[in-house]
Amino acid sequence: MKSVRIGKQTIRFLEKPVILSSAAIVGPKEGRGPLAKGFDRIMENAENGQNSYELAEHKMILEACHKCLEKADVQPETVQAFLGGDLLNQIISTSLSAREMKIPFLGLYGACSTMAESLLIGSILCDGGYAQPVLCTAGSHYCTAERQFRYPLEYGNQRTPAAQWTVTGAGACLLGNKHNGLACITHGTMGRVIDLGITDANNMGAAMAPAAADTLSEFFCDTGKTAQDFDHIFTGDLGMIGSSLLKELMKQKGFDLPDDTYQDCGMLIFDEKDDIHAGASGCGCSASVLSAHILPRLHSGEWKRVLFMATGALMSTTSSQQGESIPGIAHAILLEHIRKEDHA
Amino acid sequence: MKSVRIGKQTIRFLEKPVILSSAAIVGPKEGRGPLAKGFDRIMENAENGQNSYELAEHKMILEACHKCLEKADVQPETVQAFLGGDLLNQIISTSLSAREMKIPFLGLYGACSTMAESLLIGSILCDGGYAQPVLCTAGSHYCTAERQFRYPLEYGNQRTPAAQWTVTGAGACLLGNKHNGLACITHGTMGRVIDLGITDANNMGAAMAPAAADTLSEFFCDTGKTAQDFDHIFTGDLGMIGSSLLKELMKQKGFDLPDDTYQDCGMLIFDEKDDIHAGASGCGCSASVLSAHILPRLHSGEWKRVLFMATGALMSTTSSQQGESIPGIAHAILLEHIRKEDHA
Repeated sequence: MKSVRIGKQTIRFLEKPVILSSAAIVGPKEGRGPLAKGFDRIMENAENGQNSYELAEHKMILEACHKCLEKADVQPETVQAFLGGDLLNQIISTSLSAREMKIPFLGLYGACSTMAESLLIGSILCDGGYAQPVLCTAGSHYCTAERQFRYPLEYGNQRTPAAQWTVTGAGACLLGNKHNGLACITHGTMGRVIDLGITDANNMGAAMAPAAADTLSEFFCDTGKTAQDFDHIFTGDLGMIGSSLLKELMKQKGFDLPDDTYQDCGMLIFDEKDDIHAGASGCGCSASVLSAHILPRLHSGEWKRVLFMATGALMSTTSSQQGESIPGIAHAILLEHIRKEDHA
Repeated sequence: MKSVRIGKQTIRFLEKPVILSSAAIVGPKEGRGPLAKGFDRIMENAENGQNSYELAEHKMILEACHKCLEKADVQPETVQAFLGGDLLNQIISTSLSAREMKIPFLGLYGACSTMAESLLIGSILCDGGYAQPVLCTAGSHYCTAERQFRYPLEYGNQRTPAAQWTVTGAGACLLGNKHNGLACITHGTMGRVIDLGITDANNMGAAMAPAAADTLSEFFCDTGKTAQDFDHIFTGDLGMIGSSLLKELMKQKGFDLPDDTYQDCGMLIFDEKDDIHAGASGCGCSASVLSAHILPRLHSGEWKRVLFMATGALMSTTSSQQGESIPGIAHAILLEHIRKEDHA
């Protein structure tokens, strides 16, 4: 068996699994933002035609999955694995979607890192011939996340300056072993749980930044690459505070992270005029920005090489109430442009 | 690339990943049961030396992981991946354990199917050379599960006859590519989410049985095997009601499931004198029975071939309150005795 493991935490995918198609469905606020044109559908309202916000989230995730398969002209019954998760307790929105998709399902919980975790495991399944095509998804909804992690919207809670706004959005990617698609995945780095003691559940960027710095520096060490090797390095939802912390932490570790290379999905999705404080968050943030903004540019060749690193804050309301600090995690995948001459 | 996929949902592991070691830590009630001798430690009480049941659960999972590594004489820093989950919101007990283990972590949510999901993904990582050794875990705690899914213990809730008793227990297995260990994993079947409309959160056996029947019949179809090919087929925690439903459903599908072959971990762990109604449940049930009861017999050669299939009920309290029925899932792995002559 040829080893595909490089360094301490990184996998090199010799078969270079391909993202065959992607889709993103988002809420109205996201649909007013600068990435509007890239989304497959913008919901008219947060209810999405359902009687509860939870079902609205479920239907949004399900629609992203169906749209993604439709764009690749693939039927659900030919998909060999469905991977994903969301922020709700027992990842109920995704489990309900798996019930309707009828595809063998692996439920994941990585908080806002879920899209990267899903793509990482999906790449392993494809690369090793264990399953393909594989459908990967992640989604979140502002109204369900507020109700579950903070306060129901009806309470009219005042948000702190460090608070981030959970994206109402779902993204889906179909992975396969063809040579033709939006981009290929050449490396993945599995992150460790890092916790530097942040206890403020309204400052998740700060809680997640150390995990992002840990995974990014390990990725650089494992692969010998630097920020100069990338058109862009994207984090998922560190927001304003977490992003600047990441740059600071990387500097301390001896790695440069130039402003024109490094971007955070959480700083891209909303309009500046919308009052979102420190940026966007939620696993739907990186998932929908990946589909709407990153993959089209990799497909066209405008960008050749992008590192996509989604971060998650792994607290629960119970752990926060019991005074536990917030464990963070980050998983990274390296996306590359597929050159025309490599197409089958 | 050689295909390792057989049939619709099953993977054949050509490298036959090996369970190098296992450990199980359980609560006092489990420690009074018939499997007592197989556990590595029996907690003195539900608090496990902590100030909250949630931290007691976390420390129990962490101890199972450390004990498992100790038995294989492996240091945490040489383990390349840590996979697992629990029943708590945001799998917080496992996330906190991953924080202390400092091993690259993939968080999973499969409810009570988590140990099988973890071993399935772990086998893929080992088999394909993506990571090894890999630490797989799952755990649950009666007091945290009751508080989260039903009522706090202080409420003194009356249990229904169909109710199952969540196991206070954690199991861990270390997977690797050596030829020497407790048992090897030769096949895995990834389950679909099946929901036949059960809405009673106190009758999880009935909610999970259709998923178990779906995965088991797919496994039989994919591999051409029947119940006669196994010393035992174990389900995780169907309990009294779910087990008899599974036999009935399998009969309808044309598969025989003889009483001397088929057993449920949820019917083995507690003493009959303890008042547990329909059986045991919780992802710690199958995880601890695997370590205490199944793996030792595969290791000794008393059993040659065992199918381990853990089932999960994927509801959340919110989905139950909103009237949703309970989606079920089951993942299966085929465990085989390692013959002495195959040892390295």
